[in-house]
Amino acid sequence: QTNTLIVLIGQGSNTVPASGTASSAFLGKLLVVPMDGSHWVGVKALAQEMGRRGHRVTVVIPEVSIRMGPGKHYETVTYPVPYDKAYVDSVMASHIDVIKKTAQSFTEKIKNRFAQIQKITSLIHTGAESLLFNDSLISHLAQQGFDAVLTDPMVPTGSLVAWKLGLPTINLLRGIPCFMDVKSAGCPSPPSYVPRFFTGYTDKMSFKERTVNTLVALLEPLMCRLLYWHFDNIAYQFLGEEVGIAEVLSESAIWLMRTDPILEFPRPLMPNMVPVGGINCNVRNPLPEDLASWVSGEHGFIVFTLGTMVSEMPEETTSVFLEAFRQIPQKVRGRYISPFQIINQYNGMGASERPAGSVNILTPHPGARGLCHAVPMVMVPISGDQPDNAQKMASKGVGVVLDIVSVTTESLLQALRDVLSDTRYKENIQKLSALHKDRQIDPLELSVYWTEFVMRHKGAKHLRSAVHDLNWIQYFCLDVIALLTTVVLVFVILTVKCLKLCLRNLGRKRKQD
Amino acid sequence: QTNTLIVLIGQGSNTVPASGTASSAFLGKLLVVPMDGSHWVGVKALAQEMGRRGHRVTVVIPEVSIRMGPGKHYETVTYPVPYDKAYVDSVMASHIDVIKKTAQSFTEKIKNRFAQIQKITSLIHTGAESLLFNDSLISHLAQQGFDAVLTDPMVPTGSLVAWKLGLPTINLLRGIPCFMDVKSAGCPSPPSYVPRFFTGYTDKMSFKERTVNTLVALLEPLMCRLLYWHFDNIAYQFLGEEVGIAEVLSESAIWLMRTDPILEFPRPLMPNMVPVGGINCNVRNPLPEDLASWVSGEHGFIVFTLGTMVSEMPEETTSVFLEAFRQIPQKVRGRYISPFQIINQYNGMGASERPAGSVNILTPHPGARGLCHAVPMVMVPISGDQPDNAQKMASKGVGVVLDIVSVTTESLLQALRDVLSDTRYKENIQKLSALHKDRQIDPLELSVYWTEFVMRHKGAKHLRSAVHDLNWIQYFCLDVIALLTTVVLVFVILTVKCLKLCLRNLGRKRKQD
Repeated sequence: QTNTLIVLIGQGSNTVPASGTASSAFLGKLLVVPMDGSHWVGVKALAQEMGRRGHRVTVVIPEVSIRMGPGKHYETVTYPVPYDKAYVDSVMASHIDVIKKTAQSFTEKIKNRFAQIQKITSLIHTGAESLLFNDSLISHLAQQGFDAVLTDPMVPTGSLVAWKLGLPTINLLRGIPCFMDVKSAGCPSPPSYVPRFFTGYTDKMSFKERTVNTLVALLEPLMCRLLYWHFDNIAYQFLGEEVGIAEVLSESAIWLMRTDPILEFPRPLMPNMVPVGGINCNVRNPLPEDLASWVSGEHGFIVFTLGTMVSEMPEETTSVFLEAFRQIPQKVRGRYISPFQIINQYNGMGASERPAGSVNILTPHPGARGLCHAVPMVMVPISGDQPDNAQKMASKGVGVVLDIVSVTTESLLQALRDVLSDTRYKENIQKLSALHKDRQIDPLELSVYWTEFVMRHKGAKHLRSAVHDLNWIQYFCLDVIALLTTVVLVFVILTVKCLKLCLRNLGRKRKQD
Repeated sequence: QTNTLIVLIGQGSNTVPASGTASSAFLGKLLVVPMDGSHWVGVKALAQEMGRRGHRVTVVIPEVSIRMGPGKHYETVTYPVPYDKAYVDSVMASHIDVIKKTAQSFTEKIKNRFAQIQKITSLIHTGAESLLFNDSLISHLAQQGFDAVLTDPMVPTGSLVAWKLGLPTINLLRGIPCFMDVKSAGCPSPPSYVPRFFTGYTDKMSFKERTVNTLVALLEPLMCRLLYWHFDNIAYQFLGEEVGIAEVLSESAIWLMRTDPILEFPRPLMPNMVPVGGINCNVRNPLPEDLASWVSGEHGFIVFTLGTMVSEMPEETTSVFLEAFRQIPQKVRGRYISPFQIINQYNGMGASERPAGSVNILTPHPGARGLCHAVPMVMVPISGDQPDNAQKMASKGVGVVLDIVSVTTESLLQALRDVLSDTRYKENIQKLSALHKDRQIDPLELSVYWTEFVMRHKGAKHLRSAVHDLNWIQYFCLDVIALLTTVVLVFVILTVKCLKLCLRNLGRKRKQD
């Protein structure tokens, strides 16, 4: 059997073709307010499938975006934005400054990273404001009689529209870095075994790791405040009431979480949180002929991808990779530009038709594609949730993680050879892949079911936990603990006083005797 | 439309006929160690269905039991027990002392209740010991090469057998009173909104209720100790190692919980806890002709059931019910003996064929049958989880709860008339029923899937939370909190000392000046 592995750089993505069972009896109207970038992919897949089943699906997108656009099974409503495609591209290209190998001081690195985040944030805020403060658009949407809103609440534009129009919300998301999703769903997430974003920890932490994780957890409310500061202001202006994003999100009917116990670690979930990870594992597109012959080489092949966010790499980094690829017998297929091109090339290969070791790549979740096709990975995460995802996969023994800034031809070659020669990587990913694919119901099917459920029943109030009516003192029963402590203390004090009194009286009596 | 309601007394039960899709490719061997009484029903349903799909299913039952017995799709292995059927019946009949209306002092009541519990407990322990210390039986089971064990862990006999044979366990249960199931699964259950067994509280509690609920939660470890004291000893003798029941249960692969967010309140679940409530909602048996004509009366009808545990009522109680039933126009169908008889009579009526207001009754969960067929209820709970179940249903506005000891003809008539005349009960149960029946996958199908999953993958280790490796100090991060508090304290003390020193020096300098 030939060896194959995937070199994943950053996040990839994938469209899900129309598939599944016939449409149900209930047909309704769904409003979709998507998020751009890789977040678009999952929401688009669900919107497409809902439309294919006969629902009227309306997707609201800006006139200029990274990748959002029309689809076969939904209608689009566009709104103007005060920026052009060139500006969006320039913001995306700022990734290159962050992964530069050239000697950067720590201050420079932080400055670059911060500048990039600021640019993206500004783009997001401008986009949201262009939608929300477009009065004619909002009143047009209000008149359509939608049954529900489908959105990715990491950018809570759709959640605000839903609140304004009094519609129930279906969230489809990968997660919100400050755990606002988990908190808004009222879900417990003990820092003792639920690793936080950006820590790269697993669910088994040392004391030091647990301390850091707890500190991050303690700082989360602050992080959420900072992240959603501007949106809290937008919410106030848009809704005309004193309501923050956290409160708006806590009204969500269903949370479709793009997570999987195989990729993540087992953690508590609320009944309205539904894991739908691996939503595009079953994607099958026909493979172009030139690739079909290419993938059947003697030594197998390596798929090299930069994901959806990074359109090019600094020249020094590129040469590191090219030099390493020259020195291995496996064929390497990669691309720097046009994310969708290679998706369509590789997705054509069904599990059965593919030669041993061949693989589909690119996914909204680095590693999911490798998991899907049981192929070990060398992962070079860049930003966002990628480092965490990579660490999680590495902790399961299915691949190796390299740092994009410090990677050299030697370290890359070493990693490639390790993963190719050590059969344990292949064995581990095969085991994980078997578990990942053993499901009672297809994740896309499940997402459709819950979306329709919310539309049919005008929400899912029976799944809303009573935790939302509690403040944190009540939640942790601090008032009860205070009462119980007081009772115990009073009891102890009274007992001691009584005993003292008794002893004194006894002493007096003895004296009198 | 005619009115119908259900008078539920105690727990009912139901068998699930063979149904579902064709058997999957994987066929294995399943060992079933069931629990007697109403607990048998769900386990039997799953055992039957697994057998029907082609798995080799072996059910281990005692030679004498309340209701366990052979089935079409599984084989039985029996073992001798040191008691006879007459003794089992006498233990069951002790219920009558508990619900007697005659003037009983509080002490007498407690005495009766305690005597009843003691008899049942002793029966359970003797049964478990008869199985576990039957060496030839255990070694016979060990030789069969089973893939997994299906059991109800409330009586942990099956869990102990699984541990001994090194097999993964699938639990199918309604819950364990001291929350040992929840704890063994590592699932958080904050007492601020998760009502405890026997409290009858909902998820929305007043301060007083929250205090009581927290106290009950604090006492749970003690309750578990008491409840499983004898089994902990049995475990030590049987396994020959220092391992308690809680530890044995924490190794369970999957928890199939016979709960439903509609009947219960939304609360956290772990990924290996799967709600399969309403497992027999779709039961359809042909209805005998005499009943088919009976149920089509002008005023509708009332179904009256005592559940599975109570075979007869004290004479005074019986006359209360009969007198009330004489005074209403609705026909009443009831029975005191032979739980299965009426099940088979009523289950014949499919939702579509039934006249308006007719209903199936008897269920492992009082209220589930009413929920299944959208019929409001008058509930008269007797023991076990029945008072809690009844309160939960009442809190959703779908019925009225009466006390079995204090019930009078007048209070019963009032309750019947309230529920029959107030359309809100009907509306509420119709809404709940629609939600309850709107599922993406049939609960029995889901139970089969997870049972087969555990058999295929020899467990479900990837769903086992890391929480099991933490002690309670680590779980609550008390060590981290201690460290952080110390750091903050040291910092504050040092700062204060420094300031004092500075001020003193400043003071001195001024003096010197």
